[in-house]
Amino acid sequence: MTAKRGNRVQKYGELDLIARIQERTAAKNRSVRLGIGDDCAILQIPAETEMVITTDFSLEGRHFRRDWHTPESVGHRCLARGLSDIAAMGARPIAAFLSLAMPAPLDVRWMDRFMTGFGELAKRWGTELAGGDTSEAPGAEILADVVVTGVVKRGQALRRSDAKVGDGLYVTGSLGGSAVELSGLAASRTRSRRWMGVSEAQAHTFPDPRIGVGRALVRRRLATACMDLSDGLSSDVRRLCEFSGVGVEIDVARLPLATGATIEQALHGGEDYELLFTARADARVPRKLAGVAVSCVGRVRPSSFGVKLLAEDGSARELRAGGWEHFRKRERS
Amino acid sequence: MTAKRGNRVQKYGELDLIARIQERTAAKNRSVRLGIGDDCAILQIPAETEMVITTDFSLEGRHFRRDWHTPESVGHRCLARGLSDIAAMGARPIAAFLSLAMPAPLDVRWMDRFMTGFGELAKRWGTELAGGDTSEAPGAEILADVVVTGVVKRGQALRRSDAKVGDGLYVTGSLGGSAVELSGLAASRTRSRRWMGVSEAQAHTFPDPRIGVGRALVRRRLATACMDLSDGLSSDVRRLCEFSGVGVEIDVARLPLATGATIEQALHGGEDYELLFTARADARVPRKLAGVAVSCVGRVRPSSFGVKLLAEDGSARELRAGGWEHFRKRERS
Repeated sequence: MTAKRGNRVQKYGELDLIARIQERTAAKNRSVRLGIGDDCAILQIPAETEMVITTDFSLEGRHFRRDWHTPESVGHRCLARGLSDIAAMGARPIAAFLSLAMPAPLDVRWMDRFMTGFGELAKRWGTELAGGDTSEAPGAEILADVVVTGVVKRGQALRRSDAKVGDGLYVTGSLGGSAVELSGLAASRTRSRRWMGVSEAQAHTFPDPRIGVGRALVRRRLATACMDLSDGLSSDVRRLCEFSGVGVEIDVARLPLATGATIEQALHGGEDYELLFTARADARVPRKLAGVAVSCVGRVRPSSFGVKLLAEDGSARELRAGGWEHFRKRERS
Repeated sequence: MTAKRGNRVQKYGELDLIARIQERTAAKNRSVRLGIGDDCAILQIPAETEMVITTDFSLEGRHFRRDWHTPESVGHRCLARGLSDIAAMGARPIAAFLSLAMPAPLDVRWMDRFMTGFGELAKRWGTELAGGDTSEAPGAEILADVVVTGVVKRGQALRRSDAKVGDGLYVTGSLGGSAVELSGLAASRTRSRRWMGVSEAQAHTFPDPRIGVGRALVRRRLATACMDLSDGLSSDVRRLCEFSGVGVEIDVARLPLATGATIEQALHGGEDYELLFTARADARVPRKLAGVAVSCVGRVRPSSFGVKLLAEDGSARELRAGGWEHFRKRERS
């Protein structure tokens, strides 16, 4: 059911939770025919398009910590995760749905600031909050699950399964920025600031979903395969290889390191929310797409080649997946 | 992101969680062009239709208890909540998305049985599991959030906002059955059995979403407004009144009581997942739709009339909302 008025909200002392949420997420999208309030939202998608849908948990203690992340950052990040998936398909976002469970007693100030972070990003990408669900959380943790829907011309969505041997391998932006900012948060115990606009220094707390790049890739028919980098290049590239039935070589010297990032952080740090894509060897891939740097970091090889890292001396070694899981251990140390 | 392979699953000891889930939810729907595995699922909806979307939490301790509900019942119910919203719009379900967080260590047997309950209901209504997310839960509770999408001919979705003064007020099936079964579970501490097919005795543990009725209402253009009864008639009818700007009178003698249900349970017991709809006074509403009984229980009145219950002696009293909140207290006593 879309976010409910009435009894479920009364436990928050007659607070009109839904109205507060709506106030802070004023973005409208004309494909949304009916938004929050009824049993379902109604979306009317343009002719000759397909709809793409993604859903992502943002659970306190797993995906964020209240002592590291400001409420605005948590709101921004939980929507950014979904928007990044929409970007990876080359689609245009339409509507988001937020299921939010808050522990009692309700921290109204936290929730308002969370919705501000969510709402600012939603507005930036014309994504209407069209529904969701609210509940009291069963434990002490804040729980969110965000759905994002988008549209893309029929048959043109970018999949991760269509990379071909010989294709170039590309990434957008820079890598390891999220890991750099996160280690800073962990070390200093300071909290992320508010969003300063797109900034590498806030790659972790306020990542910028690559919607513009994804759409440009579709418009120019540049990419053969695409996915987003959420768990780290070394983990994610293996998924692209698995789905496409290919191998890859990655040239370590060509990795676009974020300021202050080590090669380890660029390879294994998660949550950069950049795009990883492949393009035919003869494709003219510009150095920037939609204002974002694009770097060729390697090449698609046959499946038997595996996933290898070429060092600067020309030697090749197997690149082991060391993304999210590794990262999580560090987060908790 | 659609349910992920790889690192997030490795913490469950290399168990191929997604493969296990897919095995148990074999339903296919031809509108799903791309299901589990990529950044997003891709849905291609038929021409001249609109898409309806709903999302519902099912949180342990809030929406179910492991000591009362079998895993099959939890799986069935968390999908049934969404399907009931799809029914209320008069739509046909297409795809579901499941975000599931399980506490460590993973109870594989529980999860398999949960997916069996989910999968059987999905299959019954041709609903493909097209994506989702998995995570380790931050606390001891199992957390699920289910999205269901459906389609309905453009402009024909049933809303809760279009009831008109003079319309008849109708409910499907019987009321209070869920409350009856739940008090049995609470009293005896026995657990719900497996699904025996559609049965009033399992109105709480295995509710039957009224998809067929919703679609018949649209096909025959019978309903002026419609919603599902999730929080209890006395609470939900107030939402219909609020959204439509009307009042109602409900004739207590005409309430279709479930076997063993009191009038209190029929009025205030939640989770019956029947449909509440209105139809023009001159509409010929059959006694059964799609094999389900339909009862006229009252009439739409002007907003100034309020929400009133007519007793058998002809006296009228205000019907107070006493659904979910009231019910929750009882559940916990």
